[in-house]
Amino acid sequence: MKKASVISIGNELLSGRTVDTNCAHLSERLLSISIPVVSSYVVRDEVEAIVRSLDLAVGEADVVLITGGLGPTDDDVTRQALAAFLKVELQFQGELLEKIMVFFARRGRQMAIKNKVQAYIPAGSKALANNLGTAPGIMAKVGEKLLFALPGVPSEMERMFEESVIPELRKLDVERVIVIRKLRCFGTGESNIAELLGDFGRRGRNPLINFTAGHGVITLHIVATAANEAQARRMAEKDEKQLRGMLGEFVYGTGEQTLAEVVGDKLARKGKTIAVAESCTGGLVSKLLTDVPGASRYLTHGWITYSNGAKISELGVASGLIEKHGAVSEEVAQAMARRAREKAGADAAIAVTGIAGPTGGREQKPVGLVYVSVEWDGGSDSKRFSFSGDREAIRLRTALTALNMLRLKI
Amino acid sequence: MKKASVISIGNELLSGRTVDTNCAHLSERLLSISIPVVSSYVVRDEVEAIVRSLDLAVGEADVVLITGGLGPTDDDVTRQALAAFLKVELQFQGELLEKIMVFFARRGRQMAIKNKVQAYIPAGSKALANNLGTAPGIMAKVGEKLLFALPGVPSEMERMFEESVIPELRKLDVERVIVIRKLRCFGTGESNIAELLGDFGRRGRNPLINFTAGHGVITLHIVATAANEAQARRMAEKDEKQLRGMLGEFVYGTGEQTLAEVVGDKLARKGKTIAVAESCTGGLVSKLLTDVPGASRYLTHGWITYSNGAKISELGVASGLIEKHGAVSEEVAQAMARRAREKAGADAAIAVTGIAGPTGGREQKPVGLVYVSVEWDGGSDSKRFSFSGDREAIRLRTALTALNMLRLKI
Repeated sequence: MKKASVISIGNELLSGRTVDTNCAHLSERLLSISIPVVSSYVVRDEVEAIVRSLDLAVGEADVVLITGGLGPTDDDVTRQALAAFLKVELQFQGELLEKIMVFFARRGRQMAIKNKVQAYIPAGSKALANNLGTAPGIMAKVGEKLLFALPGVPSEMERMFEESVIPELRKLDVERVIVIRKLRCFGTGESNIAELLGDFGRRGRNPLINFTAGHGVITLHIVATAANEAQARRMAEKDEKQLRGMLGEFVYGTGEQTLAEVVGDKLARKGKTIAVAESCTGGLVSKLLTDVPGASRYLTHGWITYSNGAKISELGVASGLIEKHGAVSEEVAQAMARRAREKAGADAAIAVTGIAGPTGGREQKPVGLVYVSVEWDGGSDSKRFSFSGDREAIRLRTALTALNMLRLKI
Repeated sequence: MKKASVISIGNELLSGRTVDTNCAHLSERLLSISIPVVSSYVVRDEVEAIVRSLDLAVGEADVVLITGGLGPTDDDVTRQALAAFLKVELQFQGELLEKIMVFFARRGRQMAIKNKVQAYIPAGSKALANNLGTAPGIMAKVGEKLLFALPGVPSEMERMFEESVIPELRKLDVERVIVIRKLRCFGTGESNIAELLGDFGRRGRNPLINFTAGHGVITLHIVATAANEAQARRMAEKDEKQLRGMLGEFVYGTGEQTLAEVVGDKLARKGKTIAVAESCTGGLVSKLLTDVPGASRYLTHGWITYSNGAKISELGVASGLIEKHGAVSEEVAQAMARRAREKAGADAAIAVTGIAGPTGGREQKPVGLVYVSVEWDGGSDSKRFSFSGDREAIRLRTALTALNMLRLKI
């Protein structure tokens, strides 16, 4: 199996100011075309340090991807480092300069004299077009090994990777192919998923099943390895079917799907509408629903009734109900959902009330106590939850839980 | 100046499944105690690969921090790799096993036999206590150089770093001290900030002034280097004062402050309240305001009037106004803000209407067109914006712009 190594260049990546997301993106994309990344390096804008990391990377991998350091300023030294590593000179390429000048002219700007350095690439290497910026990429060969230098700006890097790198990598002899499918789950804990998986979770199994978790969303990765893509796909699909059977309604989607997307899709397909009434989540449930393009097809109304007054005046929750049970209670959550649905004339409603903390908790109603109520044409459901974590974690878990409760009902 | 190198260990970091946040965290913390990170490596759970990266790191840095690979499973090989690098044996430590057993007993669980391996550390090295998990850390010396192995779980790693690593690093001779102050700006572009900075932006200057930008927030980093902390602090403070004078109202805060925090703090100090009416941001403005603990002191009411019907029925926006100017118009934004403030009986209000895309744009009203209106006791202000980027970028930029408009008025 061909292997890759990723080198990220830039002082800003080493000061903690910028988190290197390029490496994770490249790792995932490379794995999806069956070239696992076996090492990654973050180095300063310094010729010697870059050459050292190139030595190491070329020793470990068949494909080396460098990101960053292709800009026009003095501290962008990836070009020089690559030339030093290849033991060649930098060569001026007239047609590259022309492209850079056109880039500026199209934007009605004058090219700065500094940008001229971007028209130099190591002798014998090939320039890769940058359709979103000025820095061309570079491709070079060392024996059978392939080196690519890409810009550090994520959008430019990703576009160049798709347009210029992937086609080159597809030409490589790949003896084994990896296909990955993701199943997204919600509504149970990691240990329960691990137990339900049983032998499917065994290390060394093919397809390999592993999972990652965050804010209650558990993602199963089905990683199938085979001699060709069709076979790997069949293996992954077979496992997906079995896992779906075992996990039942815990599985809410595949790939990168979010709960809000799945709920929105269900509503849109049925031509149904939804209203939201939020207290402790303060707009987060609505925000998640409207993150999805086209949410206006189903979301019409939302209320953030953060104060008791707002619950009474805007939703018409009875003040006696709040006095008797408190604003954080099942009764108030139910009333909020019912009234939101009525006022909006919607088919469904979600209501949330709780204590997100860090203050405001009491012995009877501690931080993390949350009531969620959902209403739909045909019924209603309310539940009490006790979430742990900080304010952000409690709010996000609450919003996702509310969306999941509605998903299971509509 | 002492230098550090960070090695992150784990296959999951190389598959794109997990982004390595430990390295960014350590880099920022180390820089704040005047030990810049000069390189970082991500390597597989493989003894040889770890030893190779240790060789390289020790050649470049005085302090090497390893994270991950200290768990109890077969693929956790950091202990073995460290022993191989140090050319010593792993030694069983009775008191470490005792601590691990106590950890399980306290949680009412039986220690798995697998966990026994965590009681082995390289001969001559020192164990570091883990108060949040089972894996002890390891400290070793190679000549004058310090090696630390820490757990990969961020919470465990961060705690061990603060409790056990920082005290050791403070013992090192540090010839020069770095103090960093951050100024947060909003309301102008990067190029204008660069121009305003003038000579302050010069490379090699001390304090060094550089900036990072995202979603319209520009963060200036004032990095002062001096022989002692008091002197570095004075230099940074002097620059901060001058920069504040030059940048004026673009500066909204310091450190990690958000616009929502600053707006909320202003409201709370004056005992004022706020209401929010959102269309295209769909709850995001309210979400940002309520991300801040204690937001209930000032935020009482919010409306998500995503449909025209909701704007009319819930806020009482005149239907004729929407017919005449369209829902995305200055007039409707103004009416939303005015009515939200009145209905909530609040001192201030923010209203937003626009087209977040990717669909729904027309020639006259393209994707990215946004109207923001703010009202406060004493006046009102409305503005038209044209933002670029995807749906998420347009929504976030809109919400931050709205908060910033209010900040400048209250």
